[in-house]
Amino acid sequence: MRPQIILFGDSITQQSFSLGGWGAALADTFSRKADVLVRGYGGYNTRWALFLLHHIFPLDATTPPFAATIFFGANDAALSGRTSERQHVPLEEYKENLRKIVHHIKECSNKVLVVLITPPPIDEDGRFKYARSLYGDEAMKLPERTNEVTGLYAKQCIELAEELGLPSINLWSKMQETDGWQKKFLNDGLHLTPEGNAVVHQEVARIFTESGLSAPEMPLDFPHHSKIDPVTPEKAFQIKCD
Amino acid sequence: MRPQIILFGDSITQQSFSLGGWGAALADTFSRKADVLVRGYGGYNTRWALFLLHHIFPLDATTPPFAATIFFGANDAALSGRTSERQHVPLEEYKENLRKIVHHIKECSNKVLVVLITPPPIDEDGRFKYARSLYGDEAMKLPERTNEVTGLYAKQCIELAEELGLPSINLWSKMQETDGWQKKFLNDGLHLTPEGNAVVHQEVARIFTESGLSAPEMPLDFPHHSKIDPVTPEKAFQIKCD
Repeated sequence: MRPQIILFGDSITQQSFSLGGWGAALADTFSRKADVLVRGYGGYNTRWALFLLHHIFPLDATTPPFAATIFFGANDAALSGRTSERQHVPLEEYKENLRKIVHHIKECSNKVLVVLITPPPIDEDGRFKYARSLYGDEAMKLPERTNEVTGLYAKQCIELAEELGLPSINLWSKMQETDGWQKKFLNDGLHLTPEGNAVVHQEVARIFTESGLSAPEMPLDFPHHSKIDPVTPEKAFQIKCD
Repeated sequence: MRPQIILFGDSITQQSFSLGGWGAALADTFSRKADVLVRGYGGYNTRWALFLLHHIFPLDATTPPFAATIFFGANDAALSGRTSERQHVPLEEYKENLRKIVHHIKECSNKVLVVLITPPPIDEDGRFKYARSLYGDEAMKLPERTNEVTGLYAKQCIELAEELGLPSINLWSKMQETDGWQKKFLNDGLHLTPEGNAVVHQEVARIFTESGLSAPEMPLDFPHHSKIDPVTPEKAFQIKCD
């Protein structure tokens, strides 16, 4: 049974196997070394994610995952009193829910490498244009998410990672280091373009490597084809097949 | 535990999670419904694949896969006496090896949906140019694979599927129905471009649907977020969480 890497999050995780997606790229990076399983739930916030914990990370699993990314906050940060308020989770509760998620996974096995990822930044202009494209003049007049408020959630996520001694990715900050991040990395002000996905893939692979989970250093599951003697192929498989 | 779809094959399967890859697209199609696991082995022929069977499809698995694609032949069809002859497997043995693979998987569970996929066609000009780009004047002067011979392997694959009553995809024929298939679908005369990957994804999804494995008809693993009442979210999860 090969190591499993579980990607737990909202729509930005659910969509991570679409064209150019960061999850697919990670699966490619760990080809023949680890399985990357997507557990992304579009529209979910951390409050609703808690209901899934025992199903996705069963405490009695014989082989707990090797690593997990926890990537929530984009929905929790939806503003109260605006069009997406049903997804809103107060800032403090967001942090405590993330803590519960981490605790649960660590209860499965203390060896699981848990990486916290903050929500990406918000391009309010992009959100507005997206809403207009869907609803025309009926679209919201006031933003349902702002970059500033999402930044507060990102800050809580990073603070929690520091408290718990976990590696983390401040995607909110990282993306804003690049000029034109609004359209370059986000396609509707919130979800990721292929370039935005590439940032997440690069950051996750980097954090994994820094935490000792380096794909290039992991062995292939079976011999490289060049190591197989065409006359006596069984020799290459003896270790695995004895 | 959600259903698993295992992609077993050579480099064309191993690379299926790279940018635009058919495996990633399939994982996206089955998002929140089934896990797509890649078991692709670059350079492998069916003779070497037999050594992996008990590892990839253990007979004592408590939950056998729901479906498996078997996608070999591109290396078996390498010509004897040419630069890739170490990978060559005689035509009749190729068919018998495929039969052994199918029998083994059906021994795990007779319910596994097994789909046989033929190798894609060969663009000999593309192979030659690729070899020149690697080795310059030292490149092979004679092709190491021909489209005609690969077509014979494709025929054996389809014949076996008919003998065993299994669904199959004649990729060798299908791709050649499109004008300019040589450069449109193949990037080095053998491996797939994103357009070539799209053909495989489309055909696999179609065959799965025709065989009763239709992603749109499968239930989501957990409620769609719009079904969750923000005041009493637990209600949406009762069936799963009782």
